[in-house]
Amino acid sequence: MDDATVDLDRLERTGVPEVVFGEGKSAAQIRGIAGELLGAGQDLLVTRLDADKAAQLADLGEYHPRARVLVKTHEWVDRGRGEIAVICAGTSDLPVADEAAIVAHALGNRVHRITDVGVAGLHRLLAHQDALRRCHVLIVVAGMEGALPSVVAGLTDRPVIAVPTSIGYGASFGGIAALLGMLTSCGSGVSVVNIDNGFGAAFSASRINRL
Amino acid sequence: MDDATVDLDRLERTGVPEVVFGEGKSAAQIRGIAGELLGAGQDLLVTRLDADKAAQLADLGEYHPRARVLVKTHEWVDRGRGEIAVICAGTSDLPVADEAAIVAHALGNRVHRITDVGVAGLHRLLAHQDALRRCHVLIVVAGMEGALPSVVAGLTDRPVIAVPTSIGYGASFGGIAALLGMLTSCGSGVSVVNIDNGFGAAFSASRINRL
Amino acid sequence: MDDATVDLDRLERTGVPEVVFGEGKSAAQIRGIAGELLGAGQDLLVTRLDADKAAQLADLGEYHPRARVLVKTHEWVDRGRGEIAVICAGTSDLPVADEAAIVAHALGNRVHRITDVGVAGLHRLLAHQDALRRCHVLIVVAGMEGALPSVVAGLTDRPVIAVPTSIGYGASFGGIAALLGMLTSCGSGVSVVNIDNGFGAAFSASRINRL
Amino acid sequence: MDDATVDLDRLERTGVPEVVFGEGKSAAQIRGIAGELLGAGQDLLVTRLDADKAAQLADLGEYHPRARVLVKTHEWVDRGRGEIAVICAGTSDLPVADEAAIVAHALGNRVHRITDVGVAGLHRLLAHQDALRRCHVLIVVAGMEGALPSVVAGLTDRPVIAVPTSIGYGASFGGIAALLGMLTSCGSGVSVVNIDNGFGAAFSASRINRL
Amino acid sequence: MDDATVDLDRLERTGVPEVVFGEGKSAAQIRGIAGELLGAGQDLLVTRLDADKAAQLADLGEYHPRARVLVKTHEWVDRGRGEIAVICAGTSDLPVADEAAIVAHALGNRVHRITDVGVAGLHRLLAHQDALRRCHVLIVVAGMEGALPSVVAGLTDRPVIAVPTSIGYGASFGGIAALLGMLTSCGSGVSVVNIDNGFGAAFSASRINRL
Amino acid sequence: MDDATVDLDRLERTGVPEVVFGEGKSAAQIRGIAGELLGAGQDLLVTRLDADKAAQLADLGEYHPRARVLVKTHEWVDRGRGEIAVICAGTSDLPVADEAAIVAHALGNRVHRITDVGVAGLHRLLAHQDALRRCHVLIVVAGMEGALPSVVAGLTDRPVIAVPTSIGYGASFGGIAALLGMLTSCGSGVSVVNIDNGFGAAFSASRINRL
Amino acid sequence: MDDATVDLDRLERTGVPEVVFGEGKSAAQIRGIAGELLGAGQDLLVTRLDADKAAQLADLGEYHPRARVLVKTHEWVDRGRGEIAVICAGTSDLPVADEAAIVAHALGNRVHRITDVGVAGLHRLLAHQDALRRCHVLIVVAGMEGALPSVVAGLTDRPVIAVPTSIGYGASFGGIAALLGMLTSCGSGVSVVNIDNGFGAAFSASRINRL
Amino acid sequence: MDDATVDLDRLERTGVPEVVFGEGKSAAQIRGIAGELLGAGQDLLVTRLDADKAAQLADLGEYHPRARVLVKTHEWVDRGRGEIAVICAGTSDLPVADEAAIVAHALGNRVHRITDVGVAGLHRLLAHQDALRRCHVLIVVAGMEGALPSVVAGLTDRPVIAVPTSIGYGASFGGIAALLGMLTSCGSGVSVVNIDNGFGAAFSASRINRL
Repeated sequence: MDDATVDLDRLERTGVPEVVFGEGKSAAQIRGIAGELLGAGQDLLVTRLDADKAAQLADLGEYHPRARVLVKTHEWVDRGRGEIAVICAGTSDLPVADEAAIVAHALGNRVHRITDVGVAGLHRLLAHQDALRRCHVLIVVAGMEGALPSVVAGLTDRPVIAVPTSIGYGASFGGIAALLGMLTSCGSGVSVVNIDNGFGAAFSASRINRL
Repeated sequence: MDDATVDLDRLERTGVPEVVFGEGKSAAQIRGIAGELLGAGQDLLVTRLDADKAAQLADLGEYHPRARVLVKTHEWVDRGRGEIAVICAGTSDLPVADEAAIVAHALGNRVHRITDVGVAGLHRLLAHQDALRRCHVLIVVAGMEGALPSVVAGLTDRPVIAVPTSIGYGASFGGIAALLGMLTSCGSGVSVVNIDNGFGAAFSASRINRL
Repeated sequence: MDDATVDLDRLERTGVPEVVFGEGKSAAQIRGIAGELLGAGQDLLVTRLDADKAAQLADLGEYHPRARVLVKTHEWVDRGRGEIAVICAGTSDLPVADEAAIVAHALGNRVHRITDVGVAGLHRLLAHQDALRRCHVLIVVAGMEGALPSVVAGLTDRPVIAVPTSIGYGASFGGIAALLGMLTSCGSGVSVVNIDNGFGAAFSASRINRL
Repeated sequence: MDDATVDLDRLERTGVPEVVFGEGKSAAQIRGIAGELLGAGQDLLVTRLDADKAAQLADLGEYHPRARVLVKTHEWVDRGRGEIAVICAGTSDLPVADEAAIVAHALGNRVHRITDVGVAGLHRLLAHQDALRRCHVLIVVAGMEGALPSVVAGLTDRPVIAVPTSIGYGASFGGIAALLGMLTSCGSGVSVVNIDNGFGAAFSASRINRL
Repeated sequence: MDDATVDLDRLERTGVPEVVFGEGKSAAQIRGIAGELLGAGQDLLVTRLDADKAAQLADLGEYHPRARVLVKTHEWVDRGRGEIAVICAGTSDLPVADEAAIVAHALGNRVHRITDVGVAGLHRLLAHQDALRRCHVLIVVAGMEGALPSVVAGLTDRPVIAVPTSIGYGASFGGIAALLGMLTSCGSGVSVVNIDNGFGAAFSASRINRL
Repeated sequence: MDDATVDLDRLERTGVPEVVFGEGKSAAQIRGIAGELLGAGQDLLVTRLDADKAAQLADLGEYHPRARVLVKTHEWVDRGRGEIAVICAGTSDLPVADEAAIVAHALGNRVHRITDVGVAGLHRLLAHQDALRRCHVLIVVAGMEGALPSVVAGLTDRPVIAVPTSIGYGASFGGIAALLGMLTSCGSGVSVVNIDNGFGAAFSASRINRL
Repeated sequence: MDDATVDLDRLERTGVPEVVFGEGKSAAQIRGIAGELLGAGQDLLVTRLDADKAAQLADLGEYHPRARVLVKTHEWVDRGRGEIAVICAGTSDLPVADEAAIVAHALGNRVHRITDVGVAGLHRLLAHQDALRRCHVLIVVAGMEGALPSVVAGLTDRPVIAVPTSIGYGASFGGIAALLGMLTSCGSGVSVVNIDNGFGAAFSASRINRL
Repeated sequence: MDDATVDLDRLERTGVPEVVFGEGKSAAQIRGIAGELLGAGQDLLVTRLDADKAAQLADLGEYHPRARVLVKTHEWVDRGRGEIAVICAGTSDLPVADEAAIVAHALGNRVHRITDVGVAGLHRLLAHQDALRRCHVLIVVAGMEGALPSVVAGLTDRPVIAVPTSIGYGASFGGIAALLGMLTSCGSGVSVVNIDNGFGAAFSASRINRL
């Protein structure tokens, strides 16, 4: 494994094993890293894994194609204090919401999904107000103008992690419009992760839920 | 008047006299242009006029300092078919909303104001749903993430003209976040004018209201 | 339909059914949403639908390949007070102009087309001055520097909705040059929609025309 | 109070009263809003309040000049489950770190400060590893390249909220370099707020700490 | 003169003496450079010279305050084959147009001025069609969307040099909108210089006119 | 020909027939436009024509694949007063330089080519100083940092038209680095056209050369 | 060889032959340039050479596919005073690190590789502190937030050349986040080359190592 | 000293004491940090120190106003193997070049200055070719298009550190044009530091010169 220095100590230090970012790595490189992690008895999580490489690595774990995530959990244990909500503005945002939901679950959290509740039809969101107040952390996934986290944050006292998606065209500039909208949200209690970074939102939410 | 070629024919062609953009013009230049317009019996509207220059031009008309607009209307006539709503997300956006409201009125429209109804407290906006459906055109002014027009457009069948403001800091980038948010709005029926361009929104709304 | 929360109430609230944004949705997802809308007796409009997915959905309605729009109207009714003009600067802008024209018609408006009248040959536009003054709303589609709306706005008293297109190269930056040009237009009465957003322009124009 | 629609219901809905963003509001406007909040028995927090306006509002509460925050707490109660760490990369970042610390305390949290521990001298940070593992939430404030959150996240299992600051020059572009660095952090468990937004970080951290 | 290496040979090589860019240089530095140039019998042209420094250098030549140019010509000679037109879209663009006109004249060209002929009132420009065809080179100065050069280029067979100005606000981004508009102009025969660079346009036009 | 409004009058007005921008037009649309131009006895010039469409239009004229230009000249006449130099910084810039050279020739100018004379090996350029002073107009094509026009402009008294190319990677941002470098050139007498716009440079140079 | 002006004198002037940038050149053009260099007895180095063109040029030298570099060294001589370290933050950055290592070696330097030592697991880097102090120059390759050079520079007194990579997604913007992070590094002694420019880093390091 | 954690160990680790970045720190904070450094017998270097704060700290060392640097060296020792050249494109770039030269000298290096040798008058630079080959490291400071490092790198075999300056206007965008130009330089052996970062260039050059 000249190509990688696997951080086996990370589980001890941060509570979670090293997660493998699949983009830009060959199937052979990923297999090598996975071997070290699994060999040490740790769980395996590979994100941004395209279908071609996943086909070559099918023996390593379960692959979720829409989320592009491969998971191998030795034994699933509920490590959280409550549920994590994954709220999604539009149907086109589902791949990112899936990544968040699958990662959150793989890290030992119960997940509650709410889908297609964009702000152009407010009643769809308002129908879920109980969940907004019950779940421990709210992951809010939205593209285009990314307005949903602002509205959600005004309806709850729970922390909101906003995920801008690259859904949109023209002046959405691959998710910049949503990213800026979320960073400048008038709603309080919103923090933001990278564009399309369902993984990062789930990871932060999991740290919060496991406090 | 070597410095300007006043377009006295514009009233005939477009229904409204030339409007003077005050920024970058000296008080003397503005007085010259105003003289030609008023001399031809046309109304006078000067925008982006700072207080110093306004003081030198106080005899020409009425100056609105927060909106930085100077108006001289020979006789106000209601030229519109309905009301124009000017809806404002936050108190800090008021200078732009004022510009829109004053210009809309000067162009012969009745104006209905709704102020400080940002999306972080939805009930404030929902209390005005009747007006959202009654007014003929809705001008929606917002800074930061600029989410208000998306929510408004989902509650009405009237045309919405969105005005991003430069209110905000950091990633709001002087109004770019709001501008992009409005351009990529998931709400249908929204069109957008330049950052802080209350004048432009009022002008478009007036053309619509006078159809 | 776990993947979508169809907003069947939108027709009541805003006068027009939910429109389906086809990009980023699978054919199966679109079919599901379409089923709910059509099942409720509402019309169907799908935008940004590529030819591959359209072939799988051919039974749902009529597909316009250059505009990438699928339409199913139960009964076309003229709901507008006048005509909507769709004015196009260059031949290369036609796909966006087509989207605007087809959507405007599907929403119950008569449409008047004017094509290839860019500002480098002014006489081509000036030949249509009657239409510029007769139509109720003018949609102006242009790429490159996007100068056409400024010129049009100076020749009429009607509202102008400008649509920047991504036509151009280099410093056009995928439509940014045209977008900025339209937002900063010296012509009054111009509002702007997203790059290549013929749909949005038509939707706004339709709201205006139905007032 | 025509200029504001105070959201007195927000305390009920979100657990914290409306916070006043001082920028772009006049002292008179702020006094009006404060009157409504205090009159309803709620606490007062004004951010981004410059020294001039603070001098006119000195009777309303305690002003912290470096943080530009004004606070009036009726009775301070510890509402958190643990401590919030406020970690600061450089001395020049202190105004933002102060804003975070003062807001976090005003919202009912105990705060632990760690100052001037940038990554160019790692031993300074490593000396605080106990605190990085003990505190419930870590707010990490950094300008320039904003690398500190990445390093901190690798040393703890607690959620990290990163605050980019506008400290730097040239290619720091007013905090953009730090913002992008934090959004693309290789460290997991990091979420990000707007440039210089110490308030937002404290607000999110408080929601987490009060779970 | 340790601070400068004056290029006295430039007159020989390029036909024009070194021109002094005044911004960022002290009055003492400019006086030193001027001394070398004048001592060698060459003409002196200082651009971007603010009023304060100009007052200290009043003995060196004639200062044009609106254009911020200082000129000392030993003997004016007509070196051009025809006239250079300096066409200006709006009154606010005059400082840049003045810089172009004064520099063009200082370099030995006759100059024809046309002012305030923006595209929102086309008849103002069309009244000057003879000049557009008679002058040898056309310098076109415009801010906001910068549409004027596209229209001019379609009315003449002469080379057009476009100068974007920083006039505008919001999405004009200090002249970027006009710059991009001119670079992507649909009009042929247009080349562009830097934002507010009246000097550069005049210099290029002079090289053309002296061929 | 519903898709185009051919500007047959342009030859009269500007001295050159309408040139067809091939990108975004179908072969059928181009054939239609070409038919009108050729039918009126005018020359045909199509730029940005990819090989596939060119194969369908092979009967219309001569196609230059590297330059992506199709030309049909009824009779070549030397209309210029001197030569136009096309100077190219690197081998990778040749497609753009070819476009400039072929268009310049098609418009009736003699062309002198100088290739691969980037500033990292100055002696290569200095070997051509005679040509830099003899040719009437100099087109300078360069990618990466685009420094060549600055150096050329210091060695001649002729007008320089700079063409940035999209050659480069990373911080060249598709030609932006070269574009900005040329716009801010310390060399006088340089004007700039759009990225990769060899056509535009040739057109401007031809207008100059035909004066 | 009309398409290139090979700079055979460069070896004399700068100590290294001209290096061929393969992107945008045809295999035939590269073969022509290589022929001139090899014919003059100089070494050959081609960078950014894709696999297709490399296959056509296989006889010219040794091709390294991950680095996309082709090398032909007549006789390898150690020309450096010490070792050059090539330090790589993640496995995905290896293609760029390879380019740096292979070019550095081809230019006559010994190379020491350190791989996958990103800042999220500091102990991996700290294990190599001896090498950080022993090597003469340190090339540090990193994507995402690009924090590694800041940390390295604080652990050594050797010059650090930072190479941002385009690894990442969303707000990494193709390497911009890493580039800005490195330019604004709080670590002293860091200079930066273009995104993905392993070649440039190796070239600079070689100049330093050969002093 | 609650506001700072001075890194007294840095001298041992990196060969140079901590350098104080003056921007954003109060005079009192700087005095505190300086006290710790001087108290430990280390030298003092404060950069980006404006004149007002320098006046309050005049007792601490020697202040260079144009460079905004304060220096206190206990005993100057020549620690370098050769000279460092500081080459400056224009007179307006001198403040940055001064910072580089003063810092390089303070760090124990002999400095050779070359001033005002921009590429528009090549003979000025060519007159210094001996120095370009004799000095050990070349710092090249330039604003506007930043072309000078490319030309210098082609004339020497020494490492070149390029410093873009914020000198220029319009499309120079505060130094971005020069920064991008230097990063994409066609000259080999060039690495780059932040805009206006004379300090960083000197620091890197000193590390190289002390090898």
